[in-house]
Amino acid sequence: MSLQKEYMAKRQLIPKSEDMSKWYTQVIQMAQLADYSPVKGCMVIRPNGYGIWENIQEKMNPLLKELGVQNAYFPLFIPLSFLSKEAEHVEGFAPELAIVTHGGGEELKEKLVVRPTSETIMYDMYSKWIQSYRDLPLSLNQWNNVVRWEKRTYFFLRTTEFLWQETHTAHAKHQDAMDMVLNGLELYRTIAEDYLAIPVIKGRKSAAEKFAGAELTTTIEAIMPDGKALQAGTSHDLGQHFSKKEAFNIAFQNEKGEVDYVWQTSYGLSTRIIGGLIMTHGDNEGLVLPPNIAPVQVMIVPATNDRLQTTQFCEELEKTLKSQQVRAKVDTRNTLSMGWKLNDAELQGVPLTIVVGEREIEAHELTLKIRYSNEKRIVSQIGFEKIVTKILEDIQVGMLAAATKKRDALTFEVSSYDMFKEKMNTTKGFIKAFWCEDPVCEKFIKNETTASTRCLPFTNKQGDVAEEKGVCIYCQNPATHRWLFAQSY
Amino acid sequence: MSLQKEYMAKRQLIPKSEDMSKWYTQVIQMAQLADYSPVKGCMVIRPNGYGIWENIQEKMNPLLKELGVQNAYFPLFIPLSFLSKEAEHVEGFAPELAIVTHGGGEELKEKLVVRPTSETIMYDMYSKWIQSYRDLPLSLNQWNNVVRWEKRTYFFLRTTEFLWQETHTAHAKHQDAMDMVLNGLELYRTIAEDYLAIPVIKGRKSAAEKFAGAELTTTIEAIMPDGKALQAGTSHDLGQHFSKKEAFNIAFQNEKGEVDYVWQTSYGLSTRIIGGLIMTHGDNEGLVLPPNIAPVQVMIVPATNDRLQTTQFCEELEKTLKSQQVRAKVDTRNTLSMGWKLNDAELQGVPLTIVVGEREIEAHELTLKIRYSNEKRIVSQIGFEKIVTKILEDIQVGMLAAATKKRDALTFEVSSYDMFKEKMNTTKGFIKAFWCEDPVCEKFIKNETTASTRCLPFTNKQGDVAEEKGVCIYCQNPATHRWLFAQSY
Repeated sequence: MSLQKEYMAKRQLIPKSEDMSKWYTQVIQMAQLADYSPVKGCMVIRPNGYGIWENIQEKMNPLLKELGVQNAYFPLFIPLSFLSKEAEHVEGFAPELAIVTHGGGEELKEKLVVRPTSETIMYDMYSKWIQSYRDLPLSLNQWNNVVRWEKRTYFFLRTTEFLWQETHTAHAKHQDAMDMVLNGLELYRTIAEDYLAIPVIKGRKSAAEKFAGAELTTTIEAIMPDGKALQAGTSHDLGQHFSKKEAFNIAFQNEKGEVDYVWQTSYGLSTRIIGGLIMTHGDNEGLVLPPNIAPVQVMIVPATNDRLQTTQFCEELEKTLKSQQVRAKVDTRNTLSMGWKLNDAELQGVPLTIVVGEREIEAHELTLKIRYSNEKRIVSQIGFEKIVTKILEDIQVGMLAAATKKRDALTFEVSSYDMFKEKMNTTKGFIKAFWCEDPVCEKFIKNETTASTRCLPFTNKQGDVAEEKGVCIYCQNPATHRWLFAQSY
Repeated sequence: MSLQKEYMAKRQLIPKSEDMSKWYTQVIQMAQLADYSPVKGCMVIRPNGYGIWENIQEKMNPLLKELGVQNAYFPLFIPLSFLSKEAEHVEGFAPELAIVTHGGGEELKEKLVVRPTSETIMYDMYSKWIQSYRDLPLSLNQWNNVVRWEKRTYFFLRTTEFLWQETHTAHAKHQDAMDMVLNGLELYRTIAEDYLAIPVIKGRKSAAEKFAGAELTTTIEAIMPDGKALQAGTSHDLGQHFSKKEAFNIAFQNEKGEVDYVWQTSYGLSTRIIGGLIMTHGDNEGLVLPPNIAPVQVMIVPATNDRLQTTQFCEELEKTLKSQQVRAKVDTRNTLSMGWKLNDAELQGVPLTIVVGEREIEAHELTLKIRYSNEKRIVSQIGFEKIVTKILEDIQVGMLAAATKKRDALTFEVSSYDMFKEKMNTTKGFIKAFWCEDPVCEKFIKNETTASTRCLPFTNKQGDVAEEKGVCIYCQNPATHRWLFAQSY
């Protein structure tokens, strides 16, 4: 789309408050985060969207390293037979597989699956590499693309191909694995809350909602402004499901010299979280990005294109900000007006805009515009970079606080199934309710309200949960935990 | 493999000087750069190998940005029909395709190709995005995985799936495209020579050797110690082959208001260059990595594991070096002896090793061991970080110089076909010889000597070539250029 057309189109951006779903697909295209591709179910991630993903990678890599995780790369293709080695795993993924039947002009003897996740191909190698307790822990991560066939797709939230990271660790003891599960989950909380400013609730999944092949799945759950939940990252205790002899036989000699099987974990976070970012913070004018993750943190807009003095001044500002590790950029496109550029910066959710005209230069001032609060500030040019840095920090804090407030306003405790249903028919949102943990009740609730159990919230970093006395919202039998329910993406 | 077994295996590393090919596959596995996977033709890149690729990415991203290139992501799958839109392109890639015929449990209406390269899927989007000269240049890059079916595979150098970056740019004028082709090539020279310490020759490919769909292919060519050439990166002028109406119809309104078609370029560099890195620098003891690309630049080895003082001292050294942006690491594995650790560091090609024992601590000295020259130096602990930084710089320069010397010793000018054949039967190497540029002669030479034209070398950054008067080495007809011939990987 040419810039003119985009500008025209922006004028027609449907307000988020009117129809979030339409707004979502429109704003993604207009802000050039992504576009539809000619391949059904697959999208193109454009630089504005990919830049967010790159920032997530840049933030996450050092955190993974702190957990002793190293990056590696495993094959895209997996022999079909591998998936069957863990019974639940193949059952979970079989309906979503893309199958390669021909390669190099010949029909393949064994069909290959395009990885939907890499447990099986990685653990085949783990069984080769791990012999002794000295080889443990083995903790590898991949940044890659995976394919899970989808009939109905939605930008970022549900696409046939998506990008993610998947970490797979093997340990000598179950406790070490459990520590890693919780460390992985805490890492995701950090990414979601401290960088993306998306408040999340940590907890564990019900048996029905856990990962295919896991002993236990933990999750971070966010609530979107339309009251639907987004599972933003999951961390799994795989127990010895994949390591046992009949599966991948990842045996090792323990410190006592006995044969043992490793305890494993896996955790993953995908480009889907970018969908959560867009929905959580965007407004009627377009995207709103938190500074910690915005590809451009400060857009400097010259009031005119024809004055060399203004351009040079803007470039000086950019240089000063960059020297303070601020991702600043001058909008130098000289066929566009100032108004146009300001609209673009607004649509694309740039956290802070600086407008520079003759007046500002002469008065030794700068006009700052804060995207998320729509606030304007006039500041002195002297030491402006310190003020900008401080404002960016404040924006980050402010955005998480605002999102948390919205999340809390969409979180309800209910004591009767009627209230439950009423909430699901009106505001939706997170509903806290007692559940007896019988999968039958869970299924009925889901069939009748489309709300599923999102998690049993943790009360601390150790993964403890609150024990209470109550009765199941559905069957009235005794229940000891309040679960979090919601409709979900 | 357990550490013990690795150590045993290292003892059996075949000398590079004896059989480079065997040494190559052995050293890659022993140094844990990569391993065979259960999927035919695909390999696993382990952390030691992937770390090199991450460093290449880290060096290349800012260079791409300087050229105005932005990162993005396009789908893995390409509709089979897309490939046919450019005649040479489909002909070139058809024999190497992996085909997805089933997705989500159903047979697909249109078969999908796993991308062997992304021209077609990207240019379909380019035709949607580009309307006016104001939308140009459009310069996007992807770091991704591609699949080209291979019957015979070789670690890094030839695998069915490999990792690479592919940059695709569109311009209003042919001259702008040509500038980009040469800038891309210069970028590759920088990566190869300044970071990987692999000397390369820039030049253009013959018609027979150019990229399927290109108007012109430029290349960087390196020579391996066994006298075989490695094409280490290519940059293509695609002309209007893909943009013309019958192909992807990437039309735009030019400044005069007329309809025009964009001029395109693409360039790519893959994990194959890691193969070149291993062969160029490795020696009988294992890998030798240049500091600019080594995942670990300095390995600090405590002489004993049981002395807290030594460990703490080593960690202080690590901290000091890290504060100087040196990638330092203490080998803290406490079940292994010093000798073992030194052997590991040597095998893995760590540029510099520091050995720390009681003697060193007391004498306020450090023992440094330089991997590539096998040199030992005793230095004072005071200000050692400055010395280390300087030594790392010297190693980088020294390794390129040493590799250039070897390259020059393997470069020959010949004036007769007999000499040509003799060289190809003995030392092999780069052979400079006049060629009339008739594809028939090129084909006969290749059939008779297995040597192909590698490139017509450029004499400067502008891509000029030397015009000379001579006769074709094969047919004796007049020839105006000396081409570079070699057998190749």
